[in-house]
Amino acid sequence: MTRKHFHLLKTSGHARAGELDTPHGKVLTPVFLPVGSQATVRTLTPDEIKEAGFNMILANTYHLYLRPGIEIIQKLGGVHRFMAWDGAILTDSGGYQLFSLAPFCKITDEGVKFRSHVDGSEHFLTPELAVQYQESLGADIIMVLDVCSASGDSKEKVHRGMERTHRWAERCLKAKTKADLSLYAIVQGGMYPELRKQSAKYLTNLDFPGYGIGGLSVGEPKDLTLAMVELTTTLLPENKPRYLMGVGAPEDIIESVARGIDIFDCALPTRVARNGALLTRKGRVNMRRAIYAKTDRPIEASCDCFTCRNFSAAYLSHLFRSEELLALRLATIHNLRFIANLMRDIRNSILTDSLEDFRADFMSGYQTTNEKTRIDQKQRWLKKRT
Amino acid sequence: MTRKHFHLLKTSGHARAGELDTPHGKVLTPVFLPVGSQATVRTLTPDEIKEAGFNMILANTYHLYLRPGIEIIQKLGGVHRFMAWDGAILTDSGGYQLFSLAPFCKITDEGVKFRSHVDGSEHFLTPELAVQYQESLGADIIMVLDVCSASGDSKEKVHRGMERTHRWAERCLKAKTKADLSLYAIVQGGMYPELRKQSAKYLTNLDFPGYGIGGLSVGEPKDLTLAMVELTTTLLPENKPRYLMGVGAPEDIIESVARGIDIFDCALPTRVARNGALLTRKGRVNMRRAIYAKTDRPIEASCDCFTCRNFSAAYLSHLFRSEELLALRLATIHNLRFIANLMRDIRNSILTDSLEDFRADFMSGYQTTNEKTRIDQKQRWLKKRT
Repeated sequence: MTRKHFHLLKTSGHARAGELDTPHGKVLTPVFLPVGSQATVRTLTPDEIKEAGFNMILANTYHLYLRPGIEIIQKLGGVHRFMAWDGAILTDSGGYQLFSLAPFCKITDEGVKFRSHVDGSEHFLTPELAVQYQESLGADIIMVLDVCSASGDSKEKVHRGMERTHRWAERCLKAKTKADLSLYAIVQGGMYPELRKQSAKYLTNLDFPGYGIGGLSVGEPKDLTLAMVELTTTLLPENKPRYLMGVGAPEDIIESVARGIDIFDCALPTRVARNGALLTRKGRVNMRRAIYAKTDRPIEASCDCFTCRNFSAAYLSHLFRSEELLALRLATIHNLRFIANLMRDIRNSILTDSLEDFRADFMSGYQTTNEKTRIDQKQRWLKKRT
Repeated sequence: MTRKHFHLLKTSGHARAGELDTPHGKVLTPVFLPVGSQATVRTLTPDEIKEAGFNMILANTYHLYLRPGIEIIQKLGGVHRFMAWDGAILTDSGGYQLFSLAPFCKITDEGVKFRSHVDGSEHFLTPELAVQYQESLGADIIMVLDVCSASGDSKEKVHRGMERTHRWAERCLKAKTKADLSLYAIVQGGMYPELRKQSAKYLTNLDFPGYGIGGLSVGEPKDLTLAMVELTTTLLPENKPRYLMGVGAPEDIIESVARGIDIFDCALPTRVARNGALLTRKGRVNMRRAIYAKTDRPIEASCDCFTCRNFSAAYLSHLFRSEELLALRLATIHNLRFIANLMRDIRNSILTDSLEDFRADFMSGYQTTNEKTRIDQKQRWLKKRT
């Protein structure tokens, strides 16, 4: 008999503290997964990811399939050995990336025909292959191939994608051959409560060991998104972990944990770090602001990260202004540590039934960054890099 | 009385093993200094520089003067504290950078008027200011402001620059106020033996604690350069360290140590690393070659660096192909460790009077990279980054 994948230890309102049991160790929930799409959390070594406070990361089947190729990683002993990471790994199936990154993709019932964003070559991915690839990579938690809805999709289109996601989920379940890894389904249904209900109902009947919630990191207004999160978690079984895919701004994490989410992944903390935006208890601060050039204190005095323990804001400011690569590393380390500490505080507040107090306290000091600013930052970064 | 700066422990032919005594610890010679122009050895933390085997680095007055500014670093407690490096630091005066980087520079007896390569602003640097800036930075070894000759300069022009370098050296000596740091002179004279002799004679009469040899990393043929190194070292006092500025390819280090050089600095090992060229006992290997994509061994099996202990060549190849920033770090760590081990082996072979054997053994397996290839690599890298 296989070991139980998820242990729910404590609930507090809708919020939950638990533990995931994976072939590469236990993972406390709520948990945030740093994004390492290409088998590397950008700029960091495995040691540094651990030191920042993480023992599970996300890698991406789509990226690794295209480069270096699944077969190469398999021959080299799997993705853990390949990247020298002995913690747990969750792989996304590639569903989301096919629609967001591939320059061409066409979906049929059979699967997805797409072109590579790397070299334009043509490929075909099926639910069965998505499972096979993820098993070959040797991930601990793998995801079904899904059809991800986009912002503004018609109800009919979302409905069609959802139904396909359901059929594919069944095919993934049948294709799975390894007992020790956990295959999660992905609830779709866009911003349509009725469809979310249908999707949750259909997939929970199939009894997956965990449930992803997809299509909620596509830029819809926050209150609608959170309402959809709340609706969906109430439809999911209590004894299975819930994974809100692609969400990870601090305020979104807190609000979503309060609505019953256990797992998050998001490129935001690492991506904005490389853009010079550092997460603090007061909100994001931009290291390129003039004031930091002379600041003889760490970015955040109370922070215990490697960066804040060793370097002044002035030094980090200098590195960013000089376009020195060490800037990207030190900022990434800080932002990940910020999130790790946030997850620890959230978990402790659930265990002591004080999440409401923590949330009020955190949000009273935290200036959120609005979507407009986020998009500006992203565009600046893209422009700079291309 | 100040402590003796240099202890010559052993000579073997022209080669020497010694020890530098600096305010930030002892440094064994022959020594190579990783280049950290902007108060950062590109991509690495101070811990990693140490772990790679170095306890002295080079920083650059020109870069730090322009950004973030000498005064800021001074207020933040000096360059050691600024970059969290507790090893020794040698600062170049800016002489070489003024001529190689500044978009405009005009030399008079008084000093150098130049424009910043960062923002085009106009500045004026004198020998006295060069010393004052380096003292403010808090470096352990500082360099006089010199006039650097370029490849192809007429004898007359080199002569004029050399004489100015001599007058400036005297002014630097007078301007120095701190007893605990060591000010090195710089021997100039281009590829003209007669001028090198004059320069060495003039400067040794001024009794500096160490001597830089400038103008020999400007692309002249190697045999001529080495002849000039040999000529110059024989003219310098035995009890003072000799620093060959800007030279650092493995083969050049070995040949120059055999001719009496004690100190090297060079951006080459770290720069070619970022371009995917890894130093091995067989020569430089290009990580972008197809063979490495499937190589389930470290870059060099016998290497004890962090990269080779943890990652396969296939993983490094993947990181370079995916343009992942971790690639630049892992390659830098490897190349610096290669040089550190080379310096250790060279020193041991001097101590055991076996440098000739070591040199023959090393060079029999080492394929040198010719200048043409180097220029190609540099241009590729520049193209990629701009």
